[in-house]
Amino acid sequence: MTESPRADGRALDELRPVTIERGWSAQAEGSALISFGQTKVLVTASFTNGVPRWLTGKGRGWVTAEYAMLPRATNDRSDRESVKGRIGGRTHEISRLIGRALRAVVDTKALGENTIVIDCDVLQADGGTRTASITGAYVALADAIEWGREKGFIAKKATPLRDSVAAISVGIIDGRPMLDLPYVEDSRADTDMNIVMTGTGKFIEVQGTAEGAPFDKAELDALLELGAKGCADLTAIQKAVLAEERS
Amino acid sequence: MTESPRADGRALDELRPVTIERGWSAQAEGSALISFGQTKVLVTASFTNGVPRWLTGKGRGWVTAEYAMLPRATNDRSDRESVKGRIGGRTHEISRLIGRALRAVVDTKALGENTIVIDCDVLQADGGTRTASITGAYVALADAIEWGREKGFIAKKATPLRDSVAAISVGIIDGRPMLDLPYVEDSRADTDMNIVMTGTGKFIEVQGTAEGAPFDKAELDALLELGAKGCADLTAIQKAVLAEERS
Amino acid sequence: MTESPRADGRALDELRPVTIERGWSAQAEGSALISFGQTKVLVTASFTNGVPRWLTGKGRGWVTAEYAMLPRATNDRSDRESVKGRIGGRTHEISRLIGRALRAVVDTKALGENTIVIDCDVLQADGGTRTASITGAYVALADAIEWGREKGFIAKKATPLRDSVAAISVGIIDGRPMLDLPYVEDSRADTDMNIVMTGTGKFIEVQGTAEGAPFDKAELDALLELGAKGCADLTAIQKAVLAEERS
Amino acid sequence: MTESPRADGRALDELRPVTIERGWSAQAEGSALISFGQTKVLVTASFTNGVPRWLTGKGRGWVTAEYAMLPRATNDRSDRESVKGRIGGRTHEISRLIGRALRAVVDTKALGENTIVIDCDVLQADGGTRTASITGAYVALADAIEWGREKGFIAKKATPLRDSVAAISVGIIDGRPMLDLPYVEDSRADTDMNIVMTGTGKFIEVQGTAEGAPFDKAELDALLELGAKGCADLTAIQKAVLAEERS
Amino acid sequence: MTESPRADGRALDELRPVTIERGWSAQAEGSALISFGQTKVLVTASFTNGVPRWLTGKGRGWVTAEYAMLPRATNDRSDRESVKGRIGGRTHEISRLIGRALRAVVDTKALGENTIVIDCDVLQADGGTRTASITGAYVALADAIEWGREKGFIAKKATPLRDSVAAISVGIIDGRPMLDLPYVEDSRADTDMNIVMTGTGKFIEVQGTAEGAPFDKAELDALLELGAKGCADLTAIQKAVLAEERS
Amino acid sequence: MTESPRADGRALDELRPVTIERGWSAQAEGSALISFGQTKVLVTASFTNGVPRWLTGKGRGWVTAEYAMLPRATNDRSDRESVKGRIGGRTHEISRLIGRALRAVVDTKALGENTIVIDCDVLQADGGTRTASITGAYVALADAIEWGREKGFIAKKATPLRDSVAAISVGIIDGRPMLDLPYVEDSRADTDMNIVMTGTGKFIEVQGTAEGAPFDKAELDALLELGAKGCADLTAIQKAVLAEERS
Repeated sequence: MTESPRADGRALDELRPVTIERGWSAQAEGSALISFGQTKVLVTASFTNGVPRWLTGKGRGWVTAEYAMLPRATNDRSDRESVKGRIGGRTHEISRLIGRALRAVVDTKALGENTIVIDCDVLQADGGTRTASITGAYVALADAIEWGREKGFIAKKATPLRDSVAAISVGIIDGRPMLDLPYVEDSRADTDMNIVMTGTGKFIEVQGTAEGAPFDKAELDALLELGAKGCADLTAIQKAVLAEERS
Repeated sequence: MTESPRADGRALDELRPVTIERGWSAQAEGSALISFGQTKVLVTASFTNGVPRWLTGKGRGWVTAEYAMLPRATNDRSDRESVKGRIGGRTHEISRLIGRALRAVVDTKALGENTIVIDCDVLQADGGTRTASITGAYVALADAIEWGREKGFIAKKATPLRDSVAAISVGIIDGRPMLDLPYVEDSRADTDMNIVMTGTGKFIEVQGTAEGAPFDKAELDALLELGAKGCADLTAIQKAVLAEERS
Repeated sequence: MTESPRADGRALDELRPVTIERGWSAQAEGSALISFGQTKVLVTASFTNGVPRWLTGKGRGWVTAEYAMLPRATNDRSDRESVKGRIGGRTHEISRLIGRALRAVVDTKALGENTIVIDCDVLQADGGTRTASITGAYVALADAIEWGREKGFIAKKATPLRDSVAAISVGIIDGRPMLDLPYVEDSRADTDMNIVMTGTGKFIEVQGTAEGAPFDKAELDALLELGAKGCADLTAIQKAVLAEERS
Repeated sequence: MTESPRADGRALDELRPVTIERGWSAQAEGSALISFGQTKVLVTASFTNGVPRWLTGKGRGWVTAEYAMLPRATNDRSDRESVKGRIGGRTHEISRLIGRALRAVVDTKALGENTIVIDCDVLQADGGTRTASITGAYVALADAIEWGREKGFIAKKATPLRDSVAAISVGIIDGRPMLDLPYVEDSRADTDMNIVMTGTGKFIEVQGTAEGAPFDKAELDALLELGAKGCADLTAIQKAVLAEERS
Repeated sequence: MTESPRADGRALDELRPVTIERGWSAQAEGSALISFGQTKVLVTASFTNGVPRWLTGKGRGWVTAEYAMLPRATNDRSDRESVKGRIGGRTHEISRLIGRALRAVVDTKALGENTIVIDCDVLQADGGTRTASITGAYVALADAIEWGREKGFIAKKATPLRDSVAAISVGIIDGRPMLDLPYVEDSRADTDMNIVMTGTGKFIEVQGTAEGAPFDKAELDALLELGAKGCADLTAIQKAVLAEERS
Repeated sequence: MTESPRADGRALDELRPVTIERGWSAQAEGSALISFGQTKVLVTASFTNGVPRWLTGKGRGWVTAEYAMLPRATNDRSDRESVKGRIGGRTHEISRLIGRALRAVVDTKALGENTIVIDCDVLQADGGTRTASITGAYVALADAIEWGREKGFIAKKATPLRDSVAAISVGIIDGRPMLDLPYVEDSRADTDMNIVMTGTGKFIEVQGTAEGAPFDKAELDALLELGAKGCADLTAIQKAVLAEERS
């Protein structure tokens, strides 16, 4: 039996330990503290009855997301974006990705004229912060929608969630495709890909980038297959967590 | 026996349940997740060998602090200061207070030319976020100094900490002085005071504000006494936490 | 007879020469050029009928304040905050203090739906700029309220001012408590305290900070007594100025 | 023979008319005015001897890119980002994409300690502005590198360009995959994908997003094939343009 | 016959070659790509029915302008103002000048409650960017007004343009007044003047600055005469361009 | 004898009462509180030995200026530029004008490697704030240069001031050219011109703008003549003030 080439001894297609503390926040309508190994993200979903002015009167709701990292979430401390007075490109990019990923499974008509703002704050970062954010955000979103239904802001029979959504990173290191990269692997990857999929196995977003050598179709296919496996595993975890009685 | 006039049934001079998870962060040189009841603050202490340029070559170190709140730490979501592009007055004021409080017990000569940046991020807010921040920051600071000593950046025999520091809020509600106010009490208080004291019982900072009616000397004295009691209790908790083996 | 230990020969409990030029501005509804020795602050009070949107329809008025320093008010020139594009923490903190101090003596119901904005611009700074600002602001505020009454925006019988307000700094230097510190003393003080009191001798705000060694209760009491004496002296000066015919 | 389902009568796998005016700018070391139909982007490449401080002394060069749109490049005028005082998320995201795409074909060791800044300014926008930017940027970059070689900043025998790079958009509209979408098609697409490839046919970046329904592997494969065809066509045009004598 | 003292051999009172590509933009209601020699400015005029809130209901229209330079329009690349997060003084000053110059020939009553925003983006800069901007802006403005008339937003018989407007730079170099300075001359000029005139030969704006030695009345008169000649030449070119059938 | 058509009864070519309090600031190296009627500007000149980095080692000094207005200098309160987080175009434009005007009379070689920063803060505004600023700034500049000479930063025999400088506004109201316009006249003027001249009667800056109808050469000449008269009067006042013993 061959040894794993990974620092933590995982199989190439194995997720890091995943935990989801649903309802972590006492105040938010939905929330989750999700961890992918050492990566920990606190997600809250804030429900407001009503929509932004540009959407008023169209009978549709709105879901948006903001991502941020605590200054010492990483190994070296970064300056706060509030102190710098401007949001960096990476932050913007990930916030937009999370928002798109969630909206892809939301039926905004069924949501009614309600707004849900998702906040993903990375408390500790060790690779995969955007995929953990999306995966945890789905749980918080589902609970916020349930809250809206209980309060009567969403119609009893409406099903604003068409599907579930999860996300995972994959990469090629030393020629080998691997699932769910921690920082130490991510920084060595030749190709880095983030895959966002529905619970029913369709693609919402595929973002692959050659960090080192460009990649060919065969490599791309291998990564997509691995990512599909990882998203399916995460979907199962989300289902189990949401099946529990809400605290 | 009379009933407590407080929502949570506490005695007038009783702290909320206080917990300190020392070493919560896997990356920071010192850290603590502190809670005063529902108020939860993640504090990290980042140690850097060297000082800002304006202090170079003077043989002294530097300790500074930044405070911030997650957007949904409170009951209603606030806009992120990074999104607004500017830091609010309240944030500035509390950051400055925390920094001053810590520097009051630090011998910067003994610290040597090293910098420690304290980050206090409020994950959940229910009154007393600034006092919890100071109290937790002392634990993170102590650990960061120990780290610096182990790495050889601080002299073996140096004692950069002259004393410990803790802080608590007190206030007058319906004519009765009370210790450690949660949000529901804080918002009703006529007078609101934050007291920062050393472990040996001296004052570092006293900030009292009449939110409703102005207060007289007798009321001020009652509040100071109550605050001294609370700070002494917190000092005991800090000592117990720091006496444990560091994980 | 012992000599004064102070640079300007004052008694320990003596104010610097205080002058208030009421009505300095030809345009503002209330104004005062106040000096505490070399410290000179131009205060204007701008009266507007109506309130900010968040207060509309509640039958209450609003008083707020902004503090700033000219770039060369100090011995070394500072960069303008407008040029830096952001307001510093100290500016924010003092603006908030002045606003709170004034609101503590204003009955906003009696003020009616009117807004008064106080601007305190330090033309020359030699310690005590925040206490001079508060003391001068009361005079400008009183005149702006009179103006509003004359114009019919405030009811004839309404008394929006419940009391007067004044402020002074005190500190401990070489073990001796002293009143109204100029820059040269302030920078040497072990403990520095700002005290804001009503004309009837109650406390509105007490802010004491250990700049050097922490302080004990006896020192705190000595400072509070000295501050009360200074505020009473300032109250007398305010009364005399406001008793004159308005130009 | 069936009619084209496209507004402009193109075949499904046909590019819009592409023109590249190489050397459009009299000042820049490399430049190109590229058009994909009505989309027009002015690209300049600015060559500087030396690198940013964080890269000094490592024997490697640096290539970076900035993307922006003139306010009236689009059908409705947008506010200038300089006037708003902040760069939007979309602008950041595209600037980063262009930079990554170019760096993927640059051997920074061979470039030596030189910096090339690529500016892509969209003069007129009709879909595909990021893909036109990358395609034009390669031409400007190649000329700037030639300039650096002629001036002696790059070694005569060095080959800083390992390959060429081009980019194109593809999408699924009414179930049919199509190449190079103008705005009118882009806004109707169910799935939208941007593909960046080397001249030798490998992938640098694949970014696919479900705007409407999520997509499956078969659809993804069809889009990738179409994109590869488009990039190959663009590579041929780049080659022809660069084969001409430089003006 | 004496030789010209100018680098490009022009007569002292001769314009550089001037071209105006009217209707360059496919989207804007009016547009022009104007060149004064190597200086190239893309001007668009955006027409909106309605006026800013502060002007609503007064029966008058509004014309305003924004000027900007591409980062590599000049010989050395400048940082983008959007990246710096603030607009420089020069940009502000020129935007304001262009707006004033255009409004001086517009009858805002005749324009009706419509807004026209002029954007002048310098694609290549070789001196005279502000004068080229004004001269080109007039052409774009005239076409946008025509568009508004055709769409019925402006009354058929209304004449919102009271006159035409053109602008040119003049300067004194080595004691000789010269017309239309390119960068190489502008940077050597002792006195530099920008003159904005109506088509009927009256002054709208005169801005003369001594860059080297102060100037006397005789020199000022010589410059004004030269400027009047240049503006008259530009007026003729504008007329010819506007006389053509609009594409 | 005809009556004056001016609100304050002045002759058409008569300045408002001008006062200059030289040395108003106890801290600045040069200062003046200048008033043109109700317009009051506090000018300070800050002297620093050394120059900005971009000028180091060239043997030349630097003079620059910043202009600002207190929020309630005008009849209606304006928001602070520090609060808005950006400096307006008007502020930038006037700051640049003041700096250019002063540099036109300074021999930077004779100044040596020293920097003088002029701050012009308008305490009360009633028209002519930029011209009062320039006129007062000359006095503050002269004193700061004297200070530098006394301290040995400027060579004893050097004459950094080649001439004096003063400025005045002129305008045409109801067809009549008038000198030194207060706000009430300025807002009615058809043409508005600011003239900056040396003490020896040469022009440094001429800025004329048609606010209403465009103007012709005869009107321009009348305004220039009037401005020259006003600048000569101001030059005489400056001379008298500087002839006094410096306090």
